[in-house]
Amino acid sequence: MPTATPVVNGYATSTAREVRLLSRSNQCGNTSGLAPGYLQTNLIVLPSRFAADFRLLCVRNTVPCPLIAESITSGQWRELRSCVTSIASEELAKDLDLRTDAPKYNVYTDGKLTKSGCCDIKTEWTSDHVAFLIGCSFSFETALSNAGLVPPHTARGRNVPMYRTKQALCPAGVFKGATFVVSMRSYPLSEVERVRDITRPYAYTHGEPIDWGWEALKRLGIEDIDQPQWGDTPLSTVEGRPLGELTGRDIEVPVFWGCGVTPQEAVMRANLPGVVMAHAAGHMILLDVLEASVILNST
Amino acid sequence: MPTATPVVNGYATSTAREVRLLSRSNQCGNTSGLAPGYLQTNLIVLPSRFAADFRLLCVRNTVPCPLIAESITSGQWRELRSCVTSIASEELAKDLDLRTDAPKYNVYTDGKLTKSGCCDIKTEWTSDHVAFLIGCSFSFETALSNAGLVPPHTARGRNVPMYRTKQALCPAGVFKGATFVVSMRSYPLSEVERVRDITRPYAYTHGEPIDWGWEALKRLGIEDIDQPQWGDTPLSTVEGRPLGELTGRDIEVPVFWGCGVTPQEAVMRANLPGVVMAHAAGHMILLDVLEASVILNST
Repeated sequence: MPTATPVVNGYATSTAREVRLLSRSNQCGNTSGLAPGYLQTNLIVLPSRFAADFRLLCVRNTVPCPLIAESITSGQWRELRSCVTSIASEELAKDLDLRTDAPKYNVYTDGKLTKSGCCDIKTEWTSDHVAFLIGCSFSFETALSNAGLVPPHTARGRNVPMYRTKQALCPAGVFKGATFVVSMRSYPLSEVERVRDITRPYAYTHGEPIDWGWEALKRLGIEDIDQPQWGDTPLSTVEGRPLGELTGRDIEVPVFWGCGVTPQEAVMRANLPGVVMAHAAGHMILLDVLEASVILNST
Repeated sequence: MPTATPVVNGYATSTAREVRLLSRSNQCGNTSGLAPGYLQTNLIVLPSRFAADFRLLCVRNTVPCPLIAESITSGQWRELRSCVTSIASEELAKDLDLRTDAPKYNVYTDGKLTKSGCCDIKTEWTSDHVAFLIGCSFSFETALSNAGLVPPHTARGRNVPMYRTKQALCPAGVFKGATFVVSMRSYPLSEVERVRDITRPYAYTHGEPIDWGWEALKRLGIEDIDQPQWGDTPLSTVEGRPLGELTGRDIEVPVFWGCGVTPQEAVMRANLPGVVMAHAAGHMILLDVLEASVILNST
């Protein structure tokens, strides 16, 4: 359930719809912590000929790419079909416009990033484009905060750090050679099992961490924890200094989750021909659905 | 559809039921190529307190652990619930006895293999045990053979080679630190895209390969292609010699699929307390369901 009313530019952002309308009028930044309790999603928009392979990529990689919804037909930026049995399609989002309702967008042409951080994708969108919404780990941050485990980046009003890794995705058709992107939140090593327990039921929003501890950097192929490829440099909860200064110490260790930026990486690795659109990292599409509606029953 | 009638010890094995009955009377070896067209499955049987975590392990790792069915209640070795929407529970297998119907079994005690290749698990089975059936890559071998791409091990009546890798599974509760097990079939590099296309729709039986080519050995952490951890040493189609002699040549390259032995690895890595049972690698439980009933529609 919503637990607070964050304010952006003087506007209340207690509901998903308020955040979408603010984004539509270009008044919203990254969405971490906004409209607490509402489902946040990653957007990827592909030429229709790649839609079947992308669906399969999601089926084969449910942790980084949990598919929540997709366009009901090619070209649809308003009407979506739910891909989650516990959500009815008509509940997803009222008066949605996928071309304007993320705060910021990226555009890829022939697999290369050609526009970064633009306000809408109205000129790029065609009747051949199919949109997919993927779960986002912002959706379990409320639960972490309610348990006294406030993610360090939300405590400081920063964007979550995200990293490229060398952990392979299972390929699907044109999508081959891609790897996981992960988001990171730091916690004392002694709290990791509790962090795992709290985020485990959020299977549609990346669920429990995929790895943790300082040794995980080598396993994942992350060279410098202070230099994320997306989002902000992580600051330690303990000292407010760059997290890397605590390397090797159990007092605060990095914890990594699958991240919905992964599909954008997969598009680039595949050198996908044509125009692909996506949200800018951390700048999500919010749905009218509550996070609670996609939590797994633990039995 | 079934396409041939293999004979084992003088008995026809054209249907899944025939293979189960032969296994029950201890007259069946590895099931590669038996009852062509019928769904073959991996078995894992866990104490009930680990069932929820194991279900989640499957949801988070659909390629190595595609969940087909599970015990309808603890202790059930006959009545199963289908986990695939296209299969009704009552169609799965007539007069099934999971304690006897695999040709061979393994037993693990406190995470260690304590019995290997035994004929049944009647004495180990308790009312607290829950069984899970996982898809098997034998299920797409008929399709490969029909396309003229006969897997080298079936051409020679051998078991498929299976390897431990360093590719991480996404952890789930008690199941952490585990890695993919893969099965391997070798093909000319020029045929790999056709092999991918043919196996892609078999999403419930590991689907398309996860990696291929001689460079894949390094990525997966496989040290010696001629020394699989399970199954038989691979022989090349070209010369009938150990495949490793062709290292680096495009004429025949290893192609790797997710493997249903992965859950047994996960059990060992988790040092799971209590008694766990499983089929012996390559010695599967056959279902009355045809492979065709779990093929993805490509649109």
